[in-house]
Amino acid sequence: MYTPPKSKHIPQATIKRLATYVQVLESLQRDNIDLVASRPLAEACGVQGSQVRKDLAYFGEFGIRGVGYQVKNLILAITTSLGVDHEWPMVLLGVGNLGRAIINHIGFHAHGFRIQAIFDCDPEKIGKTAHGFEILPPEALAPIVAMHKIEIGIVTTKPNSAQLAADTLVSAGISAILNFSPARIKVPESIHVEYVDFFRQLYSLVFDIVRDKTSVWDDNDS
Amino acid sequence: MYTPPKSKHIPQATIKRLATYVQVLESLQRDNIDLVASRPLAEACGVQGSQVRKDLAYFGEFGIRGVGYQVKNLILAITTSLGVDHEWPMVLLGVGNLGRAIINHIGFHAHGFRIQAIFDCDPEKIGKTAHGFEILPPEALAPIVAMHKIEIGIVTTKPNSAQLAADTLVSAGISAILNFSPARIKVPESIHVEYVDFFRQLYSLVFDIVRDKTSVWDDNDS
Repeated sequence: MYTPPKSKHIPQATIKRLATYVQVLESLQRDNIDLVASRPLAEACGVQGSQVRKDLAYFGEFGIRGVGYQVKNLILAITTSLGVDHEWPMVLLGVGNLGRAIINHIGFHAHGFRIQAIFDCDPEKIGKTAHGFEILPPEALAPIVAMHKIEIGIVTTKPNSAQLAADTLVSAGISAILNFSPARIKVPESIHVEYVDFFRQLYSLVFDIVRDKTSVWDDNDS
Repeated sequence: MYTPPKSKHIPQATIKRLATYVQVLESLQRDNIDLVASRPLAEACGVQGSQVRKDLAYFGEFGIRGVGYQVKNLILAITTSLGVDHEWPMVLLGVGNLGRAIINHIGFHAHGFRIQAIFDCDPEKIGKTAHGFEILPPEALAPIVAMHKIEIGIVTTKPNSAQLAADTLVSAGISAILNFSPARIKVPESIHVEYVDFFRQLYSLVFDIVRDKTSVWDDNDS
């Protein structure tokens, strides 16, 4: 049964942890585990048990005292509350190596998301297929977005095409963009944007490793 | 010529932006652009021109007044300063859909990183290949890490195997982990960890979209 959120101000950090809970719970479900106590759930998610209970309390009373959470019900309760109980169709712009990797990973459906159609500007690519999807021209975007009521666009173009891709998505009526391109994009205030760039994180790791090994960072100029 | 970093305290945010600058510069280089002024470079990266100049100033004087930056030299200067001028071999643990997508994307080399070997616990997978790499058993990890002086491990296991993968990497002598699994991992303090989970970001986008559309989030309880 749907429990409306108890509080109106749910922190973004809670939402992101809920995504982790759902992924861990789905993994338990695949292993045919029906019941989970808050401590092992918290451990699998790498947070404190009290954090799990606090995060779930925003949405109502899920746990059964002394027993734990019913995996299936908890997944349903979280996904219903967050609006990911039905599938969100998405479009993807930019079918290079990264685009193909994302299409292959998210594919037809994963965790409530599904790629509906993929697009590229390159006439050489248009009409060919990538992991079973036909690569469509940008002109086909707006009608497909309208037809399937698509709200999320994924940008996997080269950095110098990311702004054009974002503009095309906004014109087509998209409300949110997940940008995998290493370029920042400018969009109207009403459009939501999240950035993913794991090369930034690899750089950060290398920097940490090099700093650990060399004294130049600590001893230089001192 | 290598310019040692001028300052000893370089913010993590600067390091991450430098990763973006390098990716954008490499993209310009592929388009045969030799020179770039700080303003168009900043625009392509989605930051202010003053931010670019400030970030680069940590490493020395790169720009030519009135001309801009030489693309090739600037890439070399940044990558040398950060330690990504030579390739960093990496190992990957967990060859499922996500693992295969990452192997396909990073592949043999991209932006100074290269996957050296891939591993999985599943006897069904061991010995088979994924994108040209033979899938190796966990026992083979430590000798390969030692032989190739590998410092970075990528975790793309299911969430309930992420901690075991991290423990295996730490025992093998890895110093940094990029964790794509949705589970948090516990490692000794000396080990650096970065997390990538774009389903968390998709959840966050959906939550924003749903909140925009419904009044329950603003009007409930009020």
